[in-house]
Amino acid sequence: MNRFINFAAGPAMLPTVVLERAQKEFLNWQDHGYSIVEANHRGPEFGELLSQVEAKTRDALAIPQNYRVLYLLAPARAHFAAIPLNLTQDGQTADYIITGLWSSLAAGEAEKYTQVERHENFNWNFNQDAAYVYYTDNETVNGFLIDTPDTHGVPRVVDMTSSLLTRPIDVNQYGLIFAGVQKNIAPSGLSIVIVRDDLLGRAREITPSVLDYTLQAEHHSLLNTSNNFSIYMTGLMLDWVQEQGGLTAIHARNQQKAARLYEFIDSSDFYQNQVSPPHRSILNVIFNLKDDAYNEAFLQQAKQAGMIGLKGHRKVGGMRASIYNAITLDDVDRLISHMREFAQSI
Amino acid sequence: MNRFINFAAGPAMLPTVVLERAQKEFLNWQDHGYSIVEANHRGPEFGELLSQVEAKTRDALAIPQNYRVLYLLAPARAHFAAIPLNLTQDGQTADYIITGLWSSLAAGEAEKYTQVERHENFNWNFNQDAAYVYYTDNETVNGFLIDTPDTHGVPRVVDMTSSLLTRPIDVNQYGLIFAGVQKNIAPSGLSIVIVRDDLLGRAREITPSVLDYTLQAEHHSLLNTSNNFSIYMTGLMLDWVQEQGGLTAIHARNQQKAARLYEFIDSSDFYQNQVSPPHRSILNVIFNLKDDAYNEAFLQQAKQAGMIGLKGHRKVGGMRASIYNAITLDDVDRLISHMREFAQSI
Repeated sequence: MNRFINFAAGPAMLPTVVLERAQKEFLNWQDHGYSIVEANHRGPEFGELLSQVEAKTRDALAIPQNYRVLYLLAPARAHFAAIPLNLTQDGQTADYIITGLWSSLAAGEAEKYTQVERHENFNWNFNQDAAYVYYTDNETVNGFLIDTPDTHGVPRVVDMTSSLLTRPIDVNQYGLIFAGVQKNIAPSGLSIVIVRDDLLGRAREITPSVLDYTLQAEHHSLLNTSNNFSIYMTGLMLDWVQEQGGLTAIHARNQQKAARLYEFIDSSDFYQNQVSPPHRSILNVIFNLKDDAYNEAFLQQAKQAGMIGLKGHRKVGGMRASIYNAITLDDVDRLISHMREFAQSI
Repeated sequence: MNRFINFAAGPAMLPTVVLERAQKEFLNWQDHGYSIVEANHRGPEFGELLSQVEAKTRDALAIPQNYRVLYLLAPARAHFAAIPLNLTQDGQTADYIITGLWSSLAAGEAEKYTQVERHENFNWNFNQDAAYVYYTDNETVNGFLIDTPDTHGVPRVVDMTSSLLTRPIDVNQYGLIFAGVQKNIAPSGLSIVIVRDDLLGRAREITPSVLDYTLQAEHHSLLNTSNNFSIYMTGLMLDWVQEQGGLTAIHARNQQKAARLYEFIDSSDFYQNQVSPPHRSILNVIFNLKDDAYNEAFLQQAKQAGMIGLKGHRKVGGMRASIYNAITLDDVDRLISHMREFAQSI
């Protein structure tokens, strides 16, 4: 079987061994006599799975007891609305750090519900009475990373769609973390919310029930029928994370992958990355060829060499290698070989 | 491999042959070199799949050209909010026919956004200037079915979560149809919306973008990352529907299954169904044993005989056999045999 190395930004590649485990028991989950996709979300077997997945999530990320973990049938983008609906009161301001497309879209959606102050170009003079400071720690489109900003006690609300489970984090630093699962965690169709207890209980009346974090926490994410398959796959991926040595080991490998790729790009006069080094994403490496006229040939030859998903986001063009958890160091070396050979062939 | 006959109300049983097809190509979808769960939702291969699934949906249900079909990463319950947000203007009334738990919950959610008039006990004196008349054509909890009510031109908005793709329908009779897929269509994690063009373009400002039908229609359901796996499975199920002879044949079989089961219940003095015959669901057959004290033994012996999912909804108790598309006539006969033997053993 010929599987590509898939550098797409998401839905992203998953480890073959994880897919094989799901495939093997697809018709008869854990010998229960039915498929996970046929499991009753209110039955004891699925309840046990959901508890295990939560325990594994808490373990991997060292989530303190005063945080709830939700597994919601909603795209990450639903939280662009849900966050101001759940966390702001009428007339309250929310601060948004704008570092790329996703934080900008989130700010635009929040403006439907609350007063938004945008902070660009590192002008981080936050309102002390803001409901929260929002940011996207890793922007996938322009490959831009920011560190935890000092918010002087205002809760940090962070979109970690592309970074959750790629490194250890100190959850105590955040009021709310959310992530769509389709990059490093599971097949698309689920988002995970990690929210501090004291931020619950203040959802606005107009919040759709399925996006009311307080209500979902009370119902252990089962107010509505859940996406059982993606929750199950999240569990398999958390097992895999453990087998890889946990998030510390995974983060070290991710850093090594990124360092090797940026080093090659910087040493080349054919490829370019324009992000200032402290803000370079270690998960989405953006690069341009010397001339866009070479792009098509670059992508075609990459495919012949077994690699896909390298085309940049339509808003910025160029190339993008998303080197999430499932991409190995060997995969990155193969990409570098292709890049070197392609440049030499010009 | 020992697979149960699963009478659960949803997530429900899927045909084994459909699960086997998904299993077979799970690591290498259509020889593309990656899994469907790794497919880029903006790539040409997935775009082709989504177009095919829409074409098959339109074909199976004979959907006219002036209706849009959306495949949204949202639970059915999200539409309880999305419908008034998309279809009512400030101050406008919406009429809700209450026939069970789900229509009642939908009305409660709609009251957050608009004035709701509830119609119970067949008091169907609708407002001529209502934005729509809402109902649940098949209530799963109490096994209650209603026919298309005369609304004197007011658009019908129908929750068909449990009935979509179980019978042919005349889509022209409806303004909007929605359904979670987890009963007869695919694994949970997706809802389908079929909406008439002229009802678009009026979403309220406070509608979350991911639930804005107009915006999603403009983006062909891809405003956000889609649930690719459930969309793919929907396609496989639509192929299966075709192989079974289409919805006319499936409906005939569903009617036969229900008739056989109700006939047995009515002929027995040990089992009871209290729904008046014209309103008996052909998909969810509710029944009580002579004495609730027998319930546990009934369920245990059913499991020994290879059948699960028969416990009634927690709000009503008793038993429920959900006999959706994947349940065969033979499966129903096996259930009847078990019921007969159990009654005789008492």
